[in-house]
Amino acid sequence: MSSFDLAEHPHRRFNPLSGEWVLVSPHRAKRPWQGQQEELPKENRPQYDPKCYLCPTNERANGEHNPDYKSTYAFDNDFAALQPGAPGGSFTKGGLLQAESERGICKVICFSPRHDQTLSDMEVEEIRKVVDLWQQEYEELGMLDFINHVQIFENKGQVMGSSNPHPHGQIWAQSSIPAGPAKETALQAAYYEQHQRSLLQDYLELELEENKRIVYLNDHFVVLVPFWAVWPFETLILPRRHLQHIGQMDEAEKYAFADAIKRLSVVYDRVFNVSFPYSAGIHQRPTDGQQHPSWHLHMHFYPPLLRSASVKKFMVGYEMMGDPQRDITPETSAARLKELV
Amino acid sequence: MSSFDLAEHPHRRFNPLSGEWVLVSPHRAKRPWQGQQEELPKENRPQYDPKCYLCPTNERANGEHNPDYKSTYAFDNDFAALQPGAPGGSFTKGGLLQAESERGICKVICFSPRHDQTLSDMEVEEIRKVVDLWQQEYEELGMLDFINHVQIFENKGQVMGSSNPHPHGQIWAQSSIPAGPAKETALQAAYYEQHQRSLLQDYLELELEENKRIVYLNDHFVVLVPFWAVWPFETLILPRRHLQHIGQMDEAEKYAFADAIKRLSVVYDRVFNVSFPYSAGIHQRPTDGQQHPSWHLHMHFYPPLLRSASVKKFMVGYEMMGDPQRDITPETSAARLKELV
Ligand SMILES: O=P(O)(O)O[C@H]1O[C@H](CO)[C@@H](O)[C@H](O)[C@H]1O
Ligand SMILES: O=P(O)(O)O[C@H]1O[C@H](CO)[C@@H](O)[C@H](O)[C@H]1O
Repeated sequence: MSSFDLAEHPHRRFNPLSGEWVLVSPHRAKRPWQGQQEELPKENRPQYDPKCYLCPTNERANGEHNPDYKSTYAFDNDFAALQPGAPGGSFTKGGLLQAESERGICKVICFSPRHDQTLSDMEVEEIRKVVDLWQQEYEELGMLDFINHVQIFENKGQVMGSSNPHPHGQIWAQSSIPAGPAKETALQAAYYEQHQRSLLQDYLELELEENKRIVYLNDHFVVLVPFWAVWPFETLILPRRHLQHIGQMDEAEKYAFADAIKRLSVVYDRVFNVSFPYSAGIHQRPTDGQQHPSWHLHMHFYPPLLRSASVKKFMVGYEMMGDPQRDITPETSAARLKELV
Repeated sequence: MSSFDLAEHPHRRFNPLSGEWVLVSPHRAKRPWQGQQEELPKENRPQYDPKCYLCPTNERANGEHNPDYKSTYAFDNDFAALQPGAPGGSFTKGGLLQAESERGICKVICFSPRHDQTLSDMEVEEIRKVVDLWQQEYEELGMLDFINHVQIFENKGQVMGSSNPHPHGQIWAQSSIPAGPAKETALQAAYYEQHQRSLLQDYLELELEENKRIVYLNDHFVVLVPFWAVWPFETLILPRRHLQHIGQMDEAEKYAFADAIKRLSVVYDRVFNVSFPYSAGIHQRPTDGQQHPSWHLHMHFYPPLLRSASVKKFMVGYEMMGDPQRDITPETSAARLKELV
């Protein structure tokens, strides 16, 4: 029997940030695919679309008109999942039925006035303005008494549920700390307590040393495929400095963050020669008034495509009932992305 | 300000089986949809397809021929994510990179020789034969020393990653207990310890008493939309008796289980007049040799469709970064399903 090899044999990998495992089946990468093919969105969009509710000057669902904005633009989501004025209260029965009211604010963040662009088409300087806006929104929303968590994210591409190709992201800010960041808070705190060091800074050092999963780096940020990546081309952007939140980024870091996002999104578009869909989001310190010295800001990218522009990874039966599962190894994906930088 | 109402105001609900919360935004159900539309699979399939690797007598990827089976048929997956002979071993570095080899067996379970059917077209007596096979596989696989968990599941429909419309499910049996059932094991055990009763039996009593989320019931099983449902038309099939695993079902229960599955799948097909896609799976006692008296067998159905045959719910950005989110309430979904029984 051959000896255990991460590149060949089925195994599980542990995610120390979420406490969860992913099943890796490297030998399965050659499986033929006869299932669903995704439809590709039409390209060649106009710079301005009179029917787009995100383009400058156009009318939105609530009857308001967007300003003639020239770089970025933020407004309250017209179909917000959370509302600031929701009445408080709770419901419980027999200890097993439990509900609590939830207050929050949902915003839409337009990245550019141009309908035909995505982050990968934008200049670093333009993306830095998006970073500025994220910083401002995190600080302003986080300052509100009833907001304890600010989730900044982007759904890019139809296959990721985006209903408008105009470059934009969202912010859902709310009273509770959702499960994803809550797990990261607990596990980072436990590690910090034990080692007096940041979990993700230690992890970053290991990755720089191993140099098997690094995709791109600049003076302040590193883009890598995490050892425990779930999605085929999942990546993590990590600041080298132990930043708790985006409010702490200085000018050089904001530019370097924009540069890392730009380079990563260009590389993604090269993988299958298509505008690469993904959901991305920034995890950072909850705005619950605590210091959280263990928190290390990072940005996750979860792209669904697996083998081509039209064949994605399905996280279905086994994954929904059991654990996430992947075929190609994180090392293979990282090598593929790195050669496209 | 109006008082807190589960049918109207944004809130979170707690899942006592997984320990997680779902964000419910009832007011958002009227949001217009301009995003991706799913392509519907072609209907009118032939009873026998010479190119289908699951039809009787046809050749499979490994060169073997299926027997001329008349009801159900199980075989080892030709593209198995898990392998029984995988070499043992582990990898660790700096405490933060951790991997372990994983052994297991993946099987495919054909539900019927007929290429053109789904569970909803089959007779209860035919579905009972599928239940028989699940029972047999659970017991045989579970008896193996290196198998500590047996996950029985079905991915139905292209949108749920099924690559072949021939009615079939899968079993992934393995050494580790995956996260989903591991959480359920821990939370059921804690409840049992505290109350000397089964969490899901107590829950079932509450649901029967409230009678707001029950879809269908027979002498031995209840189909309901759980209070904490994540997917728009998610359901749970619960046995009335405190069964730990499928091996304990008697003849009457197996027939009643088949009847519940049949009725639910017929109802699902009526929601949007289309063969309703879903991932479904049975959670039951791990086969790790322990008694697990707290375990209460159940079957989850996770269907993705939301508003029509072609508009599904996307679990993307916020959901991947934060918590799952739903628009229509579980009570509304249950009422809709119930009127279609
Ligand atoms: O094994 P299949 O049917 O080819 O594959 C399908 O189910 C598996 C188990 O849920 C998933 O890992 C795959 O992504 C999905 O396409
Ligand atoms: O708010 P949008 O862009 O209309 O909606 C999209 O993102 C949301 C947040 O991840 C999801 O809840 C929706 O399912 C998705 O379609």
